[in-house]
Amino acid sequence: MTADHDLAARRDAALGRSYRLFYDRPVHPVRAEGVWLHDADGTAYLDCYNNVPCIGHCHPRVTQALATQAARLNTHTRYLDETIVAYAEDLLALLPPGLDRLNLTCTGSEANDLALRVAMQVTGGRGVVVTDWAYHGGTVAVAGISPSLVPQVPGHVRAVAPPNPRAQDMEAEAARFAQDVAAAFADLSAAGHAPCALVLDTILSSDGIIADPPGLLRGAEAAARSAGALVIADEVQAGFGRIGASFWGFARHGMQPDMVTLGKPMGAGHPIAGLVLRADLAEQFGRETRYFNTFGGNPVSCAVAQTVLDVLREEELPQNADRVGASLQAGLRDLATRHTEIADVRGAGLFIGVDIAVRDDPDRPDPARAAALVEGLKTRGVLLSTSARAGNVLKIRPPLVFSDAHAARLLDALAAELSALA
Amino acid sequence: MTADHDLAARRDAALGRSYRLFYDRPVHPVRAEGVWLHDADGTAYLDCYNNVPCIGHCHPRVTQALATQAARLNTHTRYLDETIVAYAEDLLALLPPGLDRLNLTCTGSEANDLALRVAMQVTGGRGVVVTDWAYHGGTVAVAGISPSLVPQVPGHVRAVAPPNPRAQDMEAEAARFAQDVAAAFADLSAAGHAPCALVLDTILSSDGIIADPPGLLRGAEAAARSAGALVIADEVQAGFGRIGASFWGFARHGMQPDMVTLGKPMGAGHPIAGLVLRADLAEQFGRETRYFNTFGGNPVSCAVAQTVLDVLREEELPQNADRVGASLQAGLRDLATRHTEIADVRGAGLFIGVDIAVRDDPDRPDPARAAALVEGLKTRGVLLSTSARAGNVLKIRPPLVFSDAHAARLLDALAAELSALA
Repeated sequence: MTADHDLAARRDAALGRSYRLFYDRPVHPVRAEGVWLHDADGTAYLDCYNNVPCIGHCHPRVTQALATQAARLNTHTRYLDETIVAYAEDLLALLPPGLDRLNLTCTGSEANDLALRVAMQVTGGRGVVVTDWAYHGGTVAVAGISPSLVPQVPGHVRAVAPPNPRAQDMEAEAARFAQDVAAAFADLSAAGHAPCALVLDTILSSDGIIADPPGLLRGAEAAARSAGALVIADEVQAGFGRIGASFWGFARHGMQPDMVTLGKPMGAGHPIAGLVLRADLAEQFGRETRYFNTFGGNPVSCAVAQTVLDVLREEELPQNADRVGASLQAGLRDLATRHTEIADVRGAGLFIGVDIAVRDDPDRPDPARAAALVEGLKTRGVLLSTSARAGNVLKIRPPLVFSDAHAARLLDALAAELSALA
Repeated sequence: MTADHDLAARRDAALGRSYRLFYDRPVHPVRAEGVWLHDADGTAYLDCYNNVPCIGHCHPRVTQALATQAARLNTHTRYLDETIVAYAEDLLALLPPGLDRLNLTCTGSEANDLALRVAMQVTGGRGVVVTDWAYHGGTVAVAGISPSLVPQVPGHVRAVAPPNPRAQDMEAEAARFAQDVAAAFADLSAAGHAPCALVLDTILSSDGIIADPPGLLRGAEAAARSAGALVIADEVQAGFGRIGASFWGFARHGMQPDMVTLGKPMGAGHPIAGLVLRADLAEQFGRETRYFNTFGGNPVSCAVAQTVLDVLREEELPQNADRVGASLQAGLRDLATRHTEIADVRGAGLFIGVDIAVRDDPDRPDPARAAALVEGLKTRGVLLSTSARAGNVLKIRPPLVFSDAHAARLLDALAAELSALA
């Protein structure tokens, strides 16, 4: 630990205060494979948190694709390149008709930022509605639509309460959410901010992981459209099969967004992200401006992203997410019958939230216990984190190669830690 | 060409209108090494344009670093990691004392965007001054400070004419530029936009490549500081030894910026970029917010960036840039004596501009001839592009492994094309 203490001090000195570390005693991994991180002392951690290496840490086919393409050619999108175009075609075929242009970026933040840039130009408006504790990225523009990041959102942004996942009548709750979205756009218009976009993370990840029932977000989508706003589905977290075989969060809800943003799992850790949009929006945007991202969609990035798509399909990982996710949720619900601090278990595929509340008082979030569980699980060799405004929701989103045996190990560790903290 | 025509059509259909291609008949490279791009027909192109693969295309040590680290571990900055911290320390040692915190991003756009975010938070102001035809990136915020990209900059931005590189008295011209910067901040303040930042690409690349005399930008820096603005040196293009052994454009001018942004060559094509800033600014920013970039500074990116730094130093490429750049400029000046459409030759290291004007009328830019030269050089197997508001400046910025023999080849091709177009 002395060596780690020194490294942490050097890290603080070089990177500075805006860089946070996970855990009271941070993890120091030196290698990884599949769903496992290994630290310098030889401790293995079951990774139930990292959604980026979606096909498993250090997948040999990713390494192979990186090495092969990097040795051959790494330029940019202003030359003709088969790798880039073939990947774009393959990806677009996974999206519904109408969403048929791809802009490639390096990060989800850039994808959301570009979506806003397009939306502002096309609508001429600036008014954006998001959920109460949304996170859409770190640029100036998307930090401004990320209430979970900034102390106060700017005047052209309104944050509305997401659907309460424990409402008695979820249909009524979805309607309430839709009404709030409509009211927020009306309020923005009254303040001189014409409707621009509704931006929704389709698994409402930072709001506490809110997934059910399918269709939950359609009323809000319709309200935004009625107001004249575009609908942007942020699939940076939900997309690429994490929520199961429907592949995209918006598809699971039956939504028809105007733009879809992609990120984290797209290159399994290699920086590639993107914006898929309606052809007419791309046309209108491209008439007045150009978009070039030096590294965005370079041949190496696209070769890796192609490999990720191939492995996801060949190994049927979205289907695995559905199957293992469902049995993991069942196991968590079973735990909840014995540990009433679990107020709710919810999610889709392998994106699962475990709502921790004061025992027998499900309406009182217990972030201290959630944090203690995260720390305790780490000492038991299991990595996860928390979500939601109160910080009381355990966030489970492992690599999609997570098996029933891995789920059993997570459940065992959680049961033990719940008992230890009782 | 039919195959290329088909690929271009498929590219348009998948990527859409905002994606431009270089050249009337685009280049379709299939492999690259050193300073050479090879197309599918076996044609070799001397790459005098791509500044990203600074240590040469497809450098085997980059491929090796990518493959080794990708097979071992690719996580993020919220775990302890020696590769990340060691790289940060090594990089920061190349910057002057006081500039001693590094924030890692994936793109230069993100680095400039983050610099603006820090500057806005720290100064409480929004007023930004840039040069007339600046380009600082593609996010909403930095597109707004990029007059070369957007039809009109927003109200909190002022663009001032860069120093005229062909002014009789460059000292007076530098003073004029400084006065304009001061006046722009005063104008912003009068309009209610408190001073935030002066953002300068230290080689004034998109303004037409304006490098001399060293010290040219110091008056503007002082003016910004007097106005209460922070000074951001955009080293995305100039940095990492391109302008020679002084390594950074700001250092060549003797500037002391508050923040320095990095990008393109940093990972030789692998997406990594960053913001270096004063510790007190990082501290103040980090007190109120956090910054996390999922892929930014991941161990694979840092392993590659470390390799780039190592190769730059071991092969003394900044020194090579000085040496070959100087002889290339001499060769270009010699050409100018016979081809008076060359109104000016300028630059630093291996970032060189060749100003094309109407023959014997150096004040009348000739963008049509510049464009014809770019197309003609391409048919002669030499790739470069243009710069400046008028589009009349040939932009030469090859990989830094460019040798005298490569320079001679460029000079021969340019001489032939100038004669052919005469």
